[in-house]
Amino acid sequence: MRGVVMHAPGDVRVEEREDPAVLAPTDAVIRLAATCVCGSDLWPYRGIERLAAPAPMGHEYVGVVEEVGSAVTAIRPGQFVVGSFFASDNTCEICRAGYQSSCVHREPVGALGSQAERLRVPLADGTLVATPGMPDDDLVPSLLAASDVLGTGWFGAVAAQAGPGKTVAVVGDGAVGLLAVLAAKRLGAERVIAMSRHEPRQKLAVEYGATDIVEERGDAGVARIKEMTGGLGAHSVIEAVGTQESMMQAIRSTRPGGHVGYVGVSHDVALPGEELFFSHVHLHGGPAPVRQYLPELIDLIWRREIDPGKVFDLTLPLDQAAEAYRAMDERRAIKALLTV
Amino acid sequence: MRGVVMHAPGDVRVEEREDPAVLAPTDAVIRLAATCVCGSDLWPYRGIERLAAPAPMGHEYVGVVEEVGSAVTAIRPGQFVVGSFFASDNTCEICRAGYQSSCVHREPVGALGSQAERLRVPLADGTLVATPGMPDDDLVPSLLAASDVLGTGWFGAVAAQAGPGKTVAVVGDGAVGLLAVLAAKRLGAERVIAMSRHEPRQKLAVEYGATDIVEERGDAGVARIKEMTGGLGAHSVIEAVGTQESMMQAIRSTRPGGHVGYVGVSHDVALPGEELFFSHVHLHGGPAPVRQYLPELIDLIWRREIDPGKVFDLTLPLDQAAEAYRAMDERRAIKALLTV
Repeated sequence: MRGVVMHAPGDVRVEEREDPAVLAPTDAVIRLAATCVCGSDLWPYRGIERLAAPAPMGHEYVGVVEEVGSAVTAIRPGQFVVGSFFASDNTCEICRAGYQSSCVHREPVGALGSQAERLRVPLADGTLVATPGMPDDDLVPSLLAASDVLGTGWFGAVAAQAGPGKTVAVVGDGAVGLLAVLAAKRLGAERVIAMSRHEPRQKLAVEYGATDIVEERGDAGVARIKEMTGGLGAHSVIEAVGTQESMMQAIRSTRPGGHVGYVGVSHDVALPGEELFFSHVHLHGGPAPVRQYLPELIDLIWRREIDPGKVFDLTLPLDQAAEAYRAMDERRAIKALLTV
Repeated sequence: MRGVVMHAPGDVRVEEREDPAVLAPTDAVIRLAATCVCGSDLWPYRGIERLAAPAPMGHEYVGVVEEVGSAVTAIRPGQFVVGSFFASDNTCEICRAGYQSSCVHREPVGALGSQAERLRVPLADGTLVATPGMPDDDLVPSLLAASDVLGTGWFGAVAAQAGPGKTVAVVGDGAVGLLAVLAAKRLGAERVIAMSRHEPRQKLAVEYGATDIVEERGDAGVARIKEMTGGLGAHSVIEAVGTQESMMQAIRSTRPGGHVGYVGVSHDVALPGEELFFSHVHLHGGPAPVRQYLPELIDLIWRREIDPGKVFDLTLPLDQAAEAYRAMDERRAIKALLTV
């Protein structure tokens, strides 16, 4: 089959890869309906994350089940399914507490590479969620968004305790940040401040429910948020970047007793203990337990109550994956969908 | 009046200090019934926290109100009162959210020095809580403990979400750690693991409700907690030290989705972002909003349901404050009470 392999920073190729097969009795193999490039794929693309060897890429996926192992009972061939970036058994104590992305049996799907025609999904019963039927074509991008960026933005909003009466600020205007705006709004936040200086992203943020846009960053961004909140800071801040600057911007924008939900994968971040101590914020985040939210998110998409697929502002065939990476790296695209 | 002044690391003297007076209409002046030395007083005593000039010491206090300013309405001369280390108005939005120690008008009582015969307390109405009457002598140590160490241990337990069904581990066996054990037990925790290698402290921890004692520290301590919790880690971990080692021990002892409540004042701590991200823990702490808990804690003490005063295993007259500091520094005493 055809699939994306990253050979070195900036060097992304579509190659012939071995066809996946059911290896364990709990596996499923799916034929992808669509896949996409993630903001986190840009870390190795930019050489910030080290790449030991050529690696298959991609961890977001929707598609039709082709084959299941003998121990798979809930998922059947022919179903349209959505999964996420960590396979999980969905039965262990950690899963039952809602942290499927830290499942004691978790397996990273990224290592298998979903930017391809087909994908082996481990622990299929615990990982995949079937849609009510075959989706209309126009729902596919939104279902694909649920696989990671929507689920991740949603977790960020939950971790930041976005809700009624709250002022929520979002640091980061990538797909996750934009969908965190959508999540905060859906969770009932009174005011949602998107921090962005890119006009098309500002526009989408407003469509998704942002009530305010702040263009300032760093200390100036913090000062602006304070100014808008009676000097106190936001109740909830969602961090969707993963750098030292964005983390400190998020912590400093939050009022004492408020909540920071951080979902940008941390890179070279060291949080100063004393400042954190006196900030009095709650800090929670990490790899989103997307599996927890999938049934609810699929339902919202199926009933066309939300349209997270709008974050895909570039669609290319799988064979042009290299251009998809380039466009996202150069911020010409928010997020690129690859048709298979 | 007589009061404690620290001149340099290791150099604590009892000197004649200026008598406090009502300066602002919201002030009160109290005559101390007892005061004490705090674990955090040891940071400058050990030269880890820099001392710019000779400083009056002490931020824990109980006593009888002598005089109030013209704007004080809830507190009256003659009342026995308990206060905490940050004066707070108890009416601002941050106070109303339960974070009085980040009150927008907060003032550090430590700068005024409660290791003395008398003390000016700013924002008296918002800061002080009167007991139902004059306490019996044997209740005074417990009421004094409520002023900081009990309230701080309590906040640690609340921040770590100690409660029914939870396994709670406590890092640190100082007065705050021991009272965090008491708090976790009162909050309904199923299992409370005290991490201590000091026999008298282990004994008090058990009296306060610890179900298990772990003597190992660092990586070995983490491994032991994992072993005791089916490989997962504790649901709740209270950190009551404030060093890099103790913070990492707390974070690593907590299961994904679990809660770390940290109340040890951070010194030279830098939290690695990536490890924190993948740990999936909730992190919350800071200077305890003791004022929030005072009414409840005073009530528990008044009804003799808890006996936090047991952490005072050394009682000396104010004039022997230097020996009180030495005994705590050398870990000969858990906590020293100074009679006034």
